[in-house]
Amino acid sequence: MKTLQDYIDRLDQLNFKEMYNNDFFLTWEKSDDELEAVFTVADALRYMRTNNISTKVFESGLGISLFRDNSTRTRFSFASACNLLGLEVQDLDEGRSQVAHGETVRETANMISFMADVIGIRDDMYIGKGNAYMHQVSDAVQTGNKDGVLEQRPTLVNLQCDIDHPTQAMADALHLIHEFGGIRNLKGKKVAMTWAYSPSYGKPLSVPQGIIGLMTRFGMDVVLAHPEGYEVMPGVEDVARKNAKRSGGSFTRTNSMAEAFKDADIVYPKSWAPFAAMERRTDLYGEGDAEGIKALEKELLAQNAEHKDWCCTEELMKTTKDGKALYLHCLPADINDVSCKEGEVEASVFDRYRTPLYKEASYKPYIIAAMIFLSKFEDPQKILKKLAEREAKRIFE
Amino acid sequence: MKTLQDYIDRLDQLNFKEMYNNDFFLTWEKSDDELEAVFTVADALRYMRTNNISTKVFESGLGISLFRDNSTRTRFSFASACNLLGLEVQDLDEGRSQVAHGETVRETANMISFMADVIGIRDDMYIGKGNAYMHQVSDAVQTGNKDGVLEQRPTLVNLQCDIDHPTQAMADALHLIHEFGGIRNLKGKKVAMTWAYSPSYGKPLSVPQGIIGLMTRFGMDVVLAHPEGYEVMPGVEDVARKNAKRSGGSFTRTNSMAEAFKDADIVYPKSWAPFAAMERRTDLYGEGDAEGIKALEKELLAQNAEHKDWCCTEELMKTTKDGKALYLHCLPADINDVSCKEGEVEASVFDRYRTPLYKEASYKPYIIAAMIFLSKFEDPQKILKKLAEREAKRIFE
Amino acid sequence: MKTLQDYIDRLDQLNFKEMYNNDFFLTWEKSDDELEAVFTVADALRYMRTNNISTKVFESGLGISLFRDNSTRTRFSFASACNLLGLEVQDLDEGRSQVAHGETVRETANMISFMADVIGIRDDMYIGKGNAYMHQVSDAVQTGNKDGVLEQRPTLVNLQCDIDHPTQAMADALHLIHEFGGIRNLKGKKVAMTWAYSPSYGKPLSVPQGIIGLMTRFGMDVVLAHPEGYEVMPGVEDVARKNAKRSGGSFTRTNSMAEAFKDADIVYPKSWAPFAAMERRTDLYGEGDAEGIKALEKELLAQNAEHKDWCCTEELMKTTKDGKALYLHCLPADINDVSCKEGEVEASVFDRYRTPLYKEASYKPYIIAAMIFLSKFEDPQKILKKLAEREAKRIFE
Repeated sequence: MKTLQDYIDRLDQLNFKEMYNNDFFLTWEKSDDELEAVFTVADALRYMRTNNISTKVFESGLGISLFRDNSTRTRFSFASACNLLGLEVQDLDEGRSQVAHGETVRETANMISFMADVIGIRDDMYIGKGNAYMHQVSDAVQTGNKDGVLEQRPTLVNLQCDIDHPTQAMADALHLIHEFGGIRNLKGKKVAMTWAYSPSYGKPLSVPQGIIGLMTRFGMDVVLAHPEGYEVMPGVEDVARKNAKRSGGSFTRTNSMAEAFKDADIVYPKSWAPFAAMERRTDLYGEGDAEGIKALEKELLAQNAEHKDWCCTEELMKTTKDGKALYLHCLPADINDVSCKEGEVEASVFDRYRTPLYKEASYKPYIIAAMIFLSKFEDPQKILKKLAEREAKRIFE
Repeated sequence: MKTLQDYIDRLDQLNFKEMYNNDFFLTWEKSDDELEAVFTVADALRYMRTNNISTKVFESGLGISLFRDNSTRTRFSFASACNLLGLEVQDLDEGRSQVAHGETVRETANMISFMADVIGIRDDMYIGKGNAYMHQVSDAVQTGNKDGVLEQRPTLVNLQCDIDHPTQAMADALHLIHEFGGIRNLKGKKVAMTWAYSPSYGKPLSVPQGIIGLMTRFGMDVVLAHPEGYEVMPGVEDVARKNAKRSGGSFTRTNSMAEAFKDADIVYPKSWAPFAAMERRTDLYGEGDAEGIKALEKELLAQNAEHKDWCCTEELMKTTKDGKALYLHCLPADINDVSCKEGEVEASVFDRYRTPLYKEASYKPYIIAAMIFLSKFEDPQKILKKLAEREAKRIFE
Repeated sequence: MKTLQDYIDRLDQLNFKEMYNNDFFLTWEKSDDELEAVFTVADALRYMRTNNISTKVFESGLGISLFRDNSTRTRFSFASACNLLGLEVQDLDEGRSQVAHGETVRETANMISFMADVIGIRDDMYIGKGNAYMHQVSDAVQTGNKDGVLEQRPTLVNLQCDIDHPTQAMADALHLIHEFGGIRNLKGKKVAMTWAYSPSYGKPLSVPQGIIGLMTRFGMDVVLAHPEGYEVMPGVEDVARKNAKRSGGSFTRTNSMAEAFKDADIVYPKSWAPFAAMERRTDLYGEGDAEGIKALEKELLAQNAEHKDWCCTEELMKTTKDGKALYLHCLPADINDVSCKEGEVEASVFDRYRTPLYKEASYKPYIIAAMIFLSKFEDPQKILKKLAEREAKRIFE
C-alpha cells in the first residue's frame, strides 16, 4: 500500500512545470512526464479521499460546465471533480445555436467567468469545430485575465472534443496502470481498439482516437481494427504511429476483429461513425440540410448493419491472451439482448467485466481533478503535503 | 427551552445503531427508537442553526436528487438538508424513460455516485414501481461500494414512493410533537386522515398511507375516511392495524367525513386517487395505452365530482375537539375560490391555519438532514457535541 | 493602491444602518451614503479576492434565484456573488404561469426559503408587475421569519424589474468611478443615455430608467435621448429630475441623438421599447390575446425600423468630449454586421471599447455580493477586518 509521500516522491522526479496555469486539450500535446503527473495526482487525491482527508483547495470559486450534448455521466464526473476540490458547478445550458462562434464566444466566455477557476467543455459532434471552439474560449479568458476583466485565468479542461477524449482515455489508462501493477508494466501489452456493431448511428470518434493517441505512449502494441470505411482521422493515426515509434511499441491497422483480438491483453470493442461521414454531416448541419442529414443517417445505419458480426463474443474473447483479456468500454455499451437485440458485446462477457468496467469509470473524476490541480498549483507536492498536515477531514469526526 | 445537551441525553437513551450506514425507505421498517432518534436529531440540528452553530459535517461530497416528477418543494427541502450538512446537490434530470430499469439502473446508479454521500429519490407515480426502484438503486451502490468502485456507500432517502412518503409524514409528526408538547402527549389523540375533493386527478396515495402508517405508532386514534372506491393499499392498512394494536391506539375506517371529524384533535383532509385506479393506470402506462389513460382520467374526474361534499368546511371544523382541531396538509392545498372553485378546504379555514401549515412544512429539511446524519455517523451524540465545541459559526461573526 | 483599511475607513464615515436586514429594490429608495457603502464594500470584496483572502461568510445557506426570463449573464452574476460569500445557488425554474400571484406567492416564497439567506429575482417583462411581485415575496418571507417558519429573513435583491435594474446601474456606476478616479470626479460629467436602433423588439426599459435614476445622484448632466414615442416611465423621469436638482446636476430630454452625444463624457446607446407599448403588451398578456400580441410586435418592429439612423457611429463618437467619450452598454449589444445587419453600434466603436465593456460587466457580481453583505451584517467594517485577520485563503497555499 502506497502512502501520500510515495506520490509526492514520484512527482518530485517528474517535470510538469508547463502544466501550471495551462489547459488540457489533447494528450499528445503533453509530455510523458506531464501525463504521469496527472496519474500520480489522481491517485494521490483518491488516496486522500479514501483516508478521509479533505482535498478542498478552493474556499470559493466556480467550475463552469458547457456541454453541447446532454451528458449525465460526463456532467457528474466533472461535478464530482469540482466538488472534490471545493468548486461549485454552474452549468451553461444554452442551446447549441445560442453559444455561437466568433465574437459571441469571446463575450460569453468572459461574462460567465468572473469567478470561474475552471471551464469544462464537451463539444464532440462536429468535425473541425469542437477543439477549435475550446481554443477560442481559452484564448478569450486568457485575454480577459490579462486585461483585468477576470481576476484569475480559468483553466480549460477538454471533456470530449472532435479529436480527443482525454479525460476518458486517461481514466482508461489509469485503470490499466492499476490492473497491470504500474505504468512500466504496460510495455509490450497488446491492446485491440476495435470497432463494434451498434444499432445506433453517429457515435463520436474521440474515444478510438483518444485511445490510439494515448496507449501508444506506453510502449504497448496498439491495433486499430474496423471494417473498411470506418477510418478515423488520419492526423490522429499519424500521432499514434509517431508515439509508437518513440515509445518502443507499435501501431497497426487491420480490417479483422479476429486478428486484433488474437492474443490481446486488452480489448476495447466500441462503435463509432466513419470520419468521412462525420465530415459530411458537419457540412450538412452547416448548410441546415435536414433532408441530407436524414439521408445520411439512413445510409450510415445500413452501412453499420452490414457489420453485425463485429461483436465482442465469448468465442472471440477465448482467442485473447489466456482467454482473459481485460475488456474496456467507456460506457454505456450496447449489450446483446439487454440494451438492444444485437450490439457491441455479448451479455455474458459484459457481466463478467462489470466490476472492472465500473472501476474504469471511477477514475474519471480523479483524472479531471488532477488536471485542474496541476494547472492551479505551481508546487503541487507542497500543496499535497500541506493538505495532509492541515488535518481537515472530508467527513467530520 | 431545551439545550443541545438535552437532545444528546435523549439520544443516549435510544437504540438506533441499525441506522448507521443504512437507508430510509418506509417508516414502519424502523423501530420506535429509530423514529424518535430522527425527531431528536432534527430538533438538535434546528436548535444549532437557530443558534448560528455550523452543522457542516461534510467538507465535500454530493447529494444526488433523482425525481421522476417535477417537484419544487421536495427539491428545495432536499437541497436545504444537503446544504445544511455541507453536501452539494446534483440533480439527475433524465426523463422518466431514460432512467430505465434493470441493468441500466445498476450502471447509472454507480456512474453518478463516485462522490455521492446521499441519493434522494422521488418516484411515486406507478404502483409497485417506486419503492422497488429505490431498492434497486440502493443495492447497486452497496455493491459498488463493496467492489471498490465507490469509496463510500451513498445513503438512500425515500423522498416519496408509491407506498410511503416518510419525510412528509415524519415532518408532520414532528410538527404534532411540537404543537402538543412532546411525543408522549400524542397518545389518545384522534387524527382524521380523510379524503377531500379536488378537481385534479391522480394525486398520490403516499401521503394518506404515510400518515396512517406512522401516526398509529404513537398510540393515537387514527381514522381513515374516504368515499367508497377510494381505498388505499390493503397492505398499508394492515400495517396501520398492527401498529395501533402494539401502541395502544386504534385504527378505524369510515366512509363518512363527518364521523372522522367528530371530536378529532387533528384533521388531514386531502385528495388522493383510488389505489385500484392507480394500479390500472400503471398497467396502461406499461402498455403505452394513451387512449386508455385518457379514458381512465375522464372516469376518475367524474368519480371525484360525485364527492364535492368532501370538503373541510368551517361547519365541519366546529365538530372537532373544542372546534379547534389542528388542520394539517402537505401543501399545496386546493382551496375553495382561491386555487380552484371547489376544493379540499374552505379559504377561511386554510387562512386560520396558515402559519402552523408553513411550520409543518419547515420541519422537512431538518427531518431529511437527520435521516442523513443518522446514517453517516455511528456516534451522532459525539458528533453533535464536537460540532458545538468546534465553534464554527454558520454566519461569520 | 488602496488597502482594505482604506475601505473600512470610508465605511466608518457613512451611514447605512438601515440596510441591515433589508432588501434592495430601487436605487432611489437608498440614500447617497447607502449607495456609496455598496460601492465601497464591492471594491473591498474585489480587493480581498485579488489578494486571495477568502470572503466566505456563510458556512451554509442558499441563494435562491428566480428568473422569469432566461438569463445566462444575470444568472452567472448572481451565482458568482453567492459563491463569493459561501451561499449555494438553487434555481427556481418554474414557468411563468406556475409562480402565480397572490396566495401562491406567499406559500411558494416560504417553501423555498427554509435555508435561504438571499433571494434574487429577475422579473422585468410586465409593466406594473415585476417590482410588485418582488415586494410580495419579501413581505411573505418577512412574515414567515416573524412567525417562526423561517429561521432567518432572506434578503431580496432586485436583479431587474419593470422599473429599475439596480445591479446593472450600480455596476455601471462603479465602472465610472474607477474610470474617472473617484465618485466625486463624476460631478459635472455629461452622460448621454440614448435610445438606439435594434432589429429586435420589446427590450426592457429598466436599463435606461435605472441609468437616469442613478446617474443623476452624482451631480452629472444626464441627457435622455430617444425618438418621439419611446418615452420611459414618467415616474422615473420625475425621480431623475428631483435627483438632479438635489445633487447639483441636471436632467434633460431630447429627441436628437446628436444633441445628446455632443461633448458627452459618457454615452450609453441602447434599444428599448416604448413604455406605453409595454403597458399595452402587459394588458394583452393579461387577456391572453395572442393575436393582439402578434399585431403589437409587428407594429413595434415597424416603428423601430423608422429609426435606423439611431446608431452609435464613429462619426457621432467624434462629436463627444475630445472624441473619446466612454462607451457603456449592459451587453449583449446589437453590433452592425456582427450580431445583426444594422444595430445599436458600429463594430469598430464596439471593438475599441471591448475591454472597458467587459470590465463594466465584471463589477456586477461584486455589487450583488455587496448588497447581500450590507444586509446581512450590522457591522460590516468589523466583519471585513475579521475576515482579513482570519487569514483563510480563497485558494489554498
